[in-house]
Amino acid sequence: MRKPKVVIVGAGFGGLAVVRALQKAPVDIVVIDRRNHHLFQPLLYQVAAAVLSPAEIATPIRSLLSGLPNVTVMMGEVESVDTSAKQVRANMGDHQEKVDYDYLVLATGSRHTYFGNDHWEAIAPGLKTIDDATAIRNKMLLAFERAEMSSDPEEISRLLTIAVIGGGPTGVEMAGTISELAHAALSREFRNINPKQTRVILIEGSPRVLASFPEKLSSAAANALRKLGVEVYQNARVTDCNANGVVIGDKLIPAGTIIWAAGVQASPAAAWLGVEADRAGRVKVEANFSVSGRENVFVIGDTATQTDAKGKVVPGVAQGAIQGGEHVGLQILARITGKPAPAPFRYRNMGNMATIGRHAAVADFGFLRMKGGLAWWLWGIVHIFFLIGFRNRLAVMLHWLWSFLTLKRGVRLITGVK
Amino acid sequence: MRKPKVVIVGAGFGGLAVVRALQKAPVDIVVIDRRNHHLFQPLLYQVAAAVLSPAEIATPIRSLLSGLPNVTVMMGEVESVDTSAKQVRANMGDHQEKVDYDYLVLATGSRHTYFGNDHWEAIAPGLKTIDDATAIRNKMLLAFERAEMSSDPEEISRLLTIAVIGGGPTGVEMAGTISELAHAALSREFRNINPKQTRVILIEGSPRVLASFPEKLSSAAANALRKLGVEVYQNARVTDCNANGVVIGDKLIPAGTIIWAAGVQASPAAAWLGVEADRAGRVKVEANFSVSGRENVFVIGDTATQTDAKGKVVPGVAQGAIQGGEHVGLQILARITGKPAPAPFRYRNMGNMATIGRHAAVADFGFLRMKGGLAWWLWGIVHIFFLIGFRNRLAVMLHWLWSFLTLKRGVRLITGVK
Repeated sequence: MRKPKVVIVGAGFGGLAVVRALQKAPVDIVVIDRRNHHLFQPLLYQVAAAVLSPAEIATPIRSLLSGLPNVTVMMGEVESVDTSAKQVRANMGDHQEKVDYDYLVLATGSRHTYFGNDHWEAIAPGLKTIDDATAIRNKMLLAFERAEMSSDPEEISRLLTIAVIGGGPTGVEMAGTISELAHAALSREFRNINPKQTRVILIEGSPRVLASFPEKLSSAAANALRKLGVEVYQNARVTDCNANGVVIGDKLIPAGTIIWAAGVQASPAAAWLGVEADRAGRVKVEANFSVSGRENVFVIGDTATQTDAKGKVVPGVAQGAIQGGEHVGLQILARITGKPAPAPFRYRNMGNMATIGRHAAVADFGFLRMKGGLAWWLWGIVHIFFLIGFRNRLAVMLHWLWSFLTLKRGVRLITGVK
Repeated sequence: MRKPKVVIVGAGFGGLAVVRALQKAPVDIVVIDRRNHHLFQPLLYQVAAAVLSPAEIATPIRSLLSGLPNVTVMMGEVESVDTSAKQVRANMGDHQEKVDYDYLVLATGSRHTYFGNDHWEAIAPGLKTIDDATAIRNKMLLAFERAEMSSDPEEISRLLTIAVIGGGPTGVEMAGTISELAHAALSREFRNINPKQTRVILIEGSPRVLASFPEKLSSAAANALRKLGVEVYQNARVTDCNANGVVIGDKLIPAGTIIWAAGVQASPAAAWLGVEADRAGRVKVEANFSVSGRENVFVIGDTATQTDAKGKVVPGVAQGAIQGGEHVGLQILARITGKPAPAPFRYRNMGNMATIGRHAAVADFGFLRMKGGLAWWLWGIVHIFFLIGFRNRLAVMLHWLWSFLTLKRGVRLITGVK
């Protein structure tokens, strides 16, 4: 008898959670991703800040899944879904592949959005992929090199200014890490400029950074950032990004590097399925992540918007994707094996955390709110223990921790420049 | 009193050896390199073969030299030298910089050459920089992905064929490592293809691989390669490289990845100086590495051709560059301080070594010739202990050794692909 075929698009946290739930089930699993690697997104900002190497936070999907004989991995970009023929169509680079499915899980995440100002992208790159991160790293390191060679004080000051737009966790972590890097690690390496002159500016449109955290932790984070030398602008509306810098209201702040951490837009899953999307492009799914009117199709993670059994909206974070993926995997398992369906989905908030540099963090577990060094250690443990799957956890953990603690110097490579 | 200014172009093994010799001297040193990192070239093939990460074999020049207050580092590309004005002109990306010198050392190395067939470069990339290495890695890994998705047996066989052109140390090491990777590490990760079907072909134009080694070691290397599954073609003339594969004589060998390790051409130092170059573009220097008719100018390493006091030609290897750099540094020191000049230069052959995969190597120390596992260990020790400079030697050594011994899996990233 042919085994049911489960096609999972996207090998992020959500997609891999589905695989994990089904790894021993009598199904054939196909994982399609347009990249060959799973990315540990919460640490991506560290690649951009030249602290970690790409290979330290990315693992080939084939390696992760090689021990599971019922899993096939395909590298390709999904272009459309035919829900009546139950078929996914993907561009494999040299040809189009049609992949039939019995169950389809879309876990394709999101990209950054410029709210209609797409021309800002060339000037203010966002941070979603390894290539984004190395591009930001190159840009920032080149700005230091140019400043070292310049004799124009205004130009030096512009080149040494790094503006981070968006005060969510990514923006906060980015600003803190860059400030630390510039003020500590680089300080002995230049002769004509003093990297301590570096201005790191964090720009948030709303009244406070880390708006999804309790107010007290927001102000703790802002203070910790200021201690690291970051200038924190809140209630500040970016009206333009151009070659000279970033414009807040009508005031230009000259900046050599601008990083976009302000908004995300879901992948085009809604368009593939021909269903309604919300303003951020997310598919409105049922409480069990299924898509109304589309048989055996589920959407999870960043690319879906879901309200759980308690009426809570599942946040677009790794834990949301993981828990959603697990739930969908158990549902598929139940339908196939005739076992009872899992209990209605309830999002368990495992806590919200953000680091500020290498020695401070804020953490919100609902019942417990923390800031400072202990929160930082918790951040490290939670990220490393709970989020990596499958294998090599110890090796990867030690490697990361080592790099993280020593602020390894070898990663500050400028590559891809002729 | 103004300190004499020593300008060193190129922060490879040669350039850094000059810095080391002069680090405590009463001179101002300027190091100009078009990249921001020193590259441990002997292990570059391991980045191409997806064994090591770029950051494991490259270190920012500023980091290496940050402890030396008399050294200034500039990232820029030299465009010309005015030997009468004693001035180097370099493109800094946004402007041209003129750098005055009292002493000039050119240590700008070489690139690969296609012997007039420059159109082969797009098809058969060479291996000199980090970007070269990641481009080869991407190409090879993508070929595996395409093969996995193909249903055409001929196309699969072509995609799984990797041809390495040139049987010198780089070619031999590349072929051995790729073969090992394909046959061992990848074997469990694909479903439709069997990476054991991979054909790795090494093509050498002369009668034997490792032509600079004694004949016995050449045949030991060829045998060790064959044991690893590499097809070794000797006396084989490549007449064309195209999208289908590589042509030997008039026979096409279909291949999905072609790697060029066949010839090198010196950097344009001769043109900058307006002096004669040999067929490989190298500047013919005096026995003390100075350039006849060009006051206080020295050329070392790959970009020079020199005959030492014993009538021996210094080989274009790391040791040649290092010993030359040290000698030039001592000469400059002598001229500045009035100390006696160093004894005439004699190249000390520290041995020629090449690895074949992770467990075999050939080594030629003149008085001692070795092959097999012991030679491999020696290769590791010599490369790691003798070739890295300045600092972090232990940390880097452990890191490399660990990656090397465990054939770390995380590095097989395909990046830079939209």
